[in-house]
Amino acid sequence: MTDLQKIEPRTLKGFRDFSPKEQILRQSMFSKIQAVFESFGFQPMSTPALEYKEILMNKYGDEEKLVYHFKDNGDREVAMRYDLTVPLARFVAENQNQLTFPFKRYQIAPVWRAENTQRGRFREFYQCDIDTVGTESQFADAEVIACIGKALDVIGVKDYEIRINDRKLFNLFQNSFDGNIEQVVIVIRGIDKLEKIGKDGVIKYLSDQGISGKGLAQVESYLDIQGTQNMFAEIQNRFEGGNGLVKEMDSLMRRIIELGVRADRLAFDPFIARGLDYYTGVVFEVVLKDKPEFGSISGGGRYDSLVDQFSRNPLAAVGGSIGIDRLIDALMSTNPKLPTLAQVIIMNMSNTLEPEYALLAKQIREAGFVTDVYPDAVKIDKQFKYAESIGAKFGVFIGEQEKADGTVKLKNLETREEVVVKQAEIIEKLKENIK
Amino acid sequence: MTDLQKIEPRTLKGFRDFSPKEQILRQSMFSKIQAVFESFGFQPMSTPALEYKEILMNKYGDEEKLVYHFKDNGDREVAMRYDLTVPLARFVAENQNQLTFPFKRYQIAPVWRAENTQRGRFREFYQCDIDTVGTESQFADAEVIACIGKALDVIGVKDYEIRINDRKLFNLFQNSFDGNIEQVVIVIRGIDKLEKIGKDGVIKYLSDQGISGKGLAQVESYLDIQGTQNMFAEIQNRFEGGNGLVKEMDSLMRRIIELGVRADRLAFDPFIARGLDYYTGVVFEVVLKDKPEFGSISGGGRYDSLVDQFSRNPLAAVGGSIGIDRLIDALMSTNPKLPTLAQVIIMNMSNTLEPEYALLAKQIREAGFVTDVYPDAVKIDKQFKYAESIGAKFGVFIGEQEKADGTVKLKNLETREEVVVKQAEIIEKLKENIK
Repeated sequence: MTDLQKIEPRTLKGFRDFSPKEQILRQSMFSKIQAVFESFGFQPMSTPALEYKEILMNKYGDEEKLVYHFKDNGDREVAMRYDLTVPLARFVAENQNQLTFPFKRYQIAPVWRAENTQRGRFREFYQCDIDTVGTESQFADAEVIACIGKALDVIGVKDYEIRINDRKLFNLFQNSFDGNIEQVVIVIRGIDKLEKIGKDGVIKYLSDQGISGKGLAQVESYLDIQGTQNMFAEIQNRFEGGNGLVKEMDSLMRRIIELGVRADRLAFDPFIARGLDYYTGVVFEVVLKDKPEFGSISGGGRYDSLVDQFSRNPLAAVGGSIGIDRLIDALMSTNPKLPTLAQVIIMNMSNTLEPEYALLAKQIREAGFVTDVYPDAVKIDKQFKYAESIGAKFGVFIGEQEKADGTVKLKNLETREEVVVKQAEIIEKLKENIK
Repeated sequence: MTDLQKIEPRTLKGFRDFSPKEQILRQSMFSKIQAVFESFGFQPMSTPALEYKEILMNKYGDEEKLVYHFKDNGDREVAMRYDLTVPLARFVAENQNQLTFPFKRYQIAPVWRAENTQRGRFREFYQCDIDTVGTESQFADAEVIACIGKALDVIGVKDYEIRINDRKLFNLFQNSFDGNIEQVVIVIRGIDKLEKIGKDGVIKYLSDQGISGKGLAQVESYLDIQGTQNMFAEIQNRFEGGNGLVKEMDSLMRRIIELGVRADRLAFDPFIARGLDYYTGVVFEVVLKDKPEFGSISGGGRYDSLVDQFSRNPLAAVGGSIGIDRLIDALMSTNPKLPTLAQVIIMNMSNTLEPEYALLAKQIREAGFVTDVYPDAVKIDKQFKYAESIGAKFGVFIGEQEKADGTVKLKNLETREEVVVKQAEIIEKLKENIK
């Protein structure tokens, strides 16, 4: 094949390979998160990467344009999973007669969004989701948030804050808009942009979208709460109906703490709106207080009407999601010592001794150690370089002399210490030295 | 929303949801396979779901038409991952200056193929792949096959056979075709169909594809080996150059056994061809001898020229893949007892006691048990039904009386036995009873 025919090896913008070094870290974080999700009684469930396009449409507000979609070979309009929530809603609607409710599931899987990569966003990234479907109980709201807090603790996230709000607060605006829900949706989308574009930006956005008069004035009054000492009291004073909602929020906070989240991790934030259209009650976002530049690393809320779109039987639901990619970026920015897998490597001193290496590798593996064998008797420098690249802790050397003596040379690759032991004793020696 | 606006909840043909029951089993199998792959020194690596379409083209022979592809929003021709091997080749070509060779990686991930679902095939399914790139050593070939054998043992596959061949045997035909490689490729595709269409079918297929004369006669002679007592000897007798290849095969078999595979698991099969174009040496397939209807559940081989398509530096490679979906189907056909996750469920006797339930759940979880809390004080029958659906082993009951006494009622949900214990002793009691 001539050079002209070579195909340039490259990945699509916004899509990433993960080398072993990165992937070992990622998998270790996934499995820690998975263990916490399971400990709270969430069970694994899986939905496909592709759905009928109509399943995903009219769910994501402004962001719908980011859904990857195409016509398949059978001329079906299909779309790639944009999040894990809408497919879950489709699943419970489709299988409601077989399921027992409440239905608590987790899913850790990639999603795809045709994002503007210049904002440091990826087009393929993982979500770690938990959801409880089929109960309106506030206990379920608290459990979702507490479980996410626990998962963040377990993967070693230090300085995070869970900012909680209730979208029902925005219903307080409905009177001003004479019950016009579409205008309230626009207001929510506007408030969602507050952190990015500031108060004046939000007001301008809302004016451009046709919000005016009494309604706009009330939104301005709401935005003025920002930075006041006691936002709970301000809402109770300024908005009719605010009282009950504030009590609900207070009870939710207490429940989350009972389930194990430190009180200082929690904050009421009446400006958390969440961009997606489907939230109906509690909403939350998690930020890293010491690294706010990584944005929200987790979020979720209650969405009691989403399943309705697929079913005549309404099913209330609440859920949350951890955005592991941003968390890992944040973690990597601290230059941590990365975990490795390899424990033992058997060096290849002579191709004629490969049968010995194979048998010994089998024994060491059966004793529970990750064991590699260098596949060819190349120069030892090259083999050491390989051993280093995989992070092996111990090198095992058997040459003709060792074979004749029934011994092996065992070298600690970190300290460079060497010992010669009987072949029969090598497992014991490794057990003494590894964990 | 009126009924007319409801969207029918449904999945695409060939795509599947996995309920918790199925997904718990799947994840347990994935993690067992992962542990075996890691024990042999394969490290995790990950590539994206989408690639530039040109990366995947001209790799899969007849099956190329099954690749999902479309134009993305940026007018790029993109394609969904059809296997894990071609993206790996792209990755090593792209990163060859950063990698240390041999590069041993595993990847467990879904792939997508627009298959004819009437043949019982899926359009989204998982592959569990191991590959070693950057060495021609036969030790690496043996290691891939032995590692796959070990993984099958660990997930409990009983009656399997690893059928091994070497594509270099087909090069023996080259003389008959005056070195015309394209004709040899057609012959390989033909022989790959032998099991499905029989000897006469293969000869007809080859004639239709323009194979004739001396070449066709030699293929017929090759196919006649089938069923003879000593296929090794037949090849040595009938084909010039067969001698060396038979010796190589013999050595490979010995090495696989040294690495821990039972000798009776291995069979030489000169008709294993593998459909994909990229194989260059050893090829293998694994079948269930007691359930041949599930087809090949694993396969792989050596592909020393694939990386060349992306790079001026040739990199030899060998790999194998386990098709976990067919294996699970085969396993499920035996009606096995499925694993569950939930261990403890705290029943909800009264909403006012939820703070107690939350605190107790936290303690039990911290002791390492998967603990669920029913989120509402509904009728106990409904709660029992839920406990059964999640497979919980123990129910914990605290009512007003128990709260006053500082006790809990602990019920073994399988045997229905109940004991009343002090709250402080519950962890100890659970430890006695759960594993």
